Amino acid sequence: MNQVSKIDFIKAEKLKEKPDPDTLQFGKNFTDYMFMMDFDGENGWVNPIIKPFESITLSPASFVFHYGQAVFEGLKAYKTIDERSVIFRPEKHIARLNASCKRLCIPPLDSELVLEALTTLVELEKDWIPEKEGTSLYIRPFVISTEPYLGVRPSHHYKFMIILSPVGAYYSDGQLNPVKIYVEDEYVRAVKGGVGHVKTPGNYAASILAQERANEVGYEQVLWLDGKENKYIEEVGSMNIFFKINGEIYTPKLNGSILPGVTRDSVIQIVHDWGIPLHEELISIDDLYETYQKGQLEEVFGTGTAATISPVGELKWEEHVMTINHFETGEFAKKLYETMTGFHYGKIEDKFGWIKEL
Amino acid sequence: MNQVSKIDFIKAEKLKEKPDPDTLQFGKNFTDYMFMMDFDGENGWVNPIIKPFESITLSPASFVFHYGQAVFEGLKAYKTIDERSVIFRPEKHIARLNASCKRLCIPPLDSELVLEALTTLVELEKDWIPEKEGTSLYIRPFVISTEPYLGVRPSHHYKFMIILSPVGAYYSDGQLNPVKIYVEDEYVRAVKGGVGHVKTPGNYAASILAQERANEVGYEQVLWLDGKENKYIEEVGSMNIFFKINGEIYTPKLNGSILPGVTRDSVIQIVHDWGIPLHEELISIDDLYETYQKGQLEEVFGTGTAATISPVGELKWEEHVMTINHFETGEFAKKLYETMTGFHYGKIEDKFGWIKEL
Repeated sequence: MNQVSKIDFIKAEKLKEKPDPDTLQFGKNFTDYMFMMDFDGENGWVNPIIKPFESITLSPASFVFHYGQAVFEGLKAYKTIDERSVIFRPEKHIARLNASCKRLCIPPLDSELVLEALTTLVELEKDWIPEKEGTSLYIRPFVISTEPYLGVRPSHHYKFMIILSPVGAYYSDGQLNPVKIYVEDEYVRAVKGGVGHVKTPGNYAASILAQERANEVGYEQVLWLDGKENKYIEEVGSMNIFFKINGEIYTPKLNGSILPGVTRDSVIQIVHDWGIPLHEELISIDDLYETYQKGQLEEVFGTGTAATISPVGELKWEEHVMTINHFETGEFAKKLYETMTGFHYGKIEDKFGWIKEL
Repeated sequence: MNQVSKIDFIKAEKLKEKPDPDTLQFGKNFTDYMFMMDFDGENGWVNPIIKPFESITLSPASFVFHYGQAVFEGLKAYKTIDERSVIFRPEKHIARLNASCKRLCIPPLDSELVLEALTTLVELEKDWIPEKEGTSLYIRPFVISTEPYLGVRPSHHYKFMIILSPVGAYYSDGQLNPVKIYVEDEYVRAVKGGVGHVKTPGNYAASILAQERANEVGYEQVLWLDGKENKYIEEVGSMNIFFKINGEIYTPKLNGSILPGVTRDSVIQIVHDWGIPLHEELISIDDLYETYQKGQLEEVFGTGTAATISPVGELKWEEHVMTINHFETGEFAKKLYETMTGFHYGKIEDKFGWIKEL
């Protein structure tokens, strides 16, 4: 399917000044260009274009405002130590985007065209990829339903867009700082049969209140339990979670309500490669606490595109407080972080084929 | 808190032609004006204005596109048989809107101002209320989060809007047509601890796939079971559900994942007023089927703002097909429909204080 690019281009009259990479806040600055493509029932996905980043105009009756039919992805481009511009596992993210579309009854996207859009846009904006270690260019592809219609059935019109946002180092001093996590036992993020396993806005909207409550009592993130029994560990905030117990690694099995994280998948492949036993299984919070009491819970960490690896220093569950590894970053989490960022910044050979060079 | 209206007004240069009330489709036509108000963290809700219905301009990074923080309501204005323009239970809808805001971490709206906005807008647009029995003017108040920001925490900016859409008769021939309902046993709409009890777009996005699947096999709506045990009846499509069993009325108890419908509440008050026993309780699909097999399930009907009362003629659960009342509209559902529409069109005295006259 190699072909001349179908993507139109409108040049920006003036480029923005790049923000200071040392004070960058996540998700607030956007680059000069964006990608856009429209869907209508008759013509399918049409008019792919890269054009200056600008506001869009929509009817107040647009479907997405009322019935939330929308999906998104989050991935990153990095500047390697030898000045190449690379994207981490774009094909995997595009496959997940299409899986999300399917669950939300959004017409599928042409994966090759989306990959071309991603790479062309990031190539054009490569001067926006910050150079400092730990920094990156966040890539946000998303689909919104745009038909001005108030009945509940799949929208007939959509917009697919990609916007880019340069982000500073998640760990500003280069040290991985452990976080405090509140095990949520009242609010629920998702349940089997629902949409917890896909990236759709409603999951995030539903999570905000629990996150706010956790923040109020001094915790940075929420650990979600399953919606059926309020017992099995699912994910933390917007990351997947891993445990190191007696030298082996455990993570909740994908069950239809947990997001299949791309960082999660990468970590699993690395751990297998290292020959360390890794178990994807149901993990109840009771069992985890018992493990903690026996002194066998050695490390806890989250995985996600934002932080890559986020060590957990404290877990609060009901009246129990579990302090993990003396609230210090464990050696295993640190080694994983160095390995993952080694791939990102081209310091380790791309043996898994995860790096898409522009 | 009586005061001079704070609502600004911009006059439309030209008014639209009103659509033919006989061929009106739900949710496709919008009136000449809309209400809009903005929120920012510093000033609160500001700039209430009624202005011509028009598109809005938003950053592609707007919070609602990515994290779905949004809520809405749906209510109706009617033209009574003596030519008055009335709104059905606006205060109740505004209270629910604020309950939805609370769950979604959206700053609360001033109920009095919202009521003023509603009544002022509908008064201005009263020529858009169709006159024929069964028709109405659908009122859609909604809040969307508008801050251009990709981090997950409550947005700092919002828009509250009200748009109006004239709707034709739900039952075009004046006869209540029974619907066929598919009892959903794979997909789940909501779970306790989630957001099923509030009107937020994500609930509807999550429901579309099951609805599509039901349509494909010849069913008009889905009956949702609870997310924990896939056993207890919750609601049907976007309506609440009632059963007449041995002369008494049953409806699922509000449990934190069922929407507290305003029509549901109205029907409960009417049934109490009639002195007929009504039970709000857990109803399992197994028990319902047993009741059916014993020949005690006399009527089934949905309640909601769109249809008011929607008789159910068939329920399909796993391999069982339950035909209700020979697929004919029951006397009880019919009497309820006539009573409810009697209030709407001013044919029955407003003894419950539900009718807000303009």
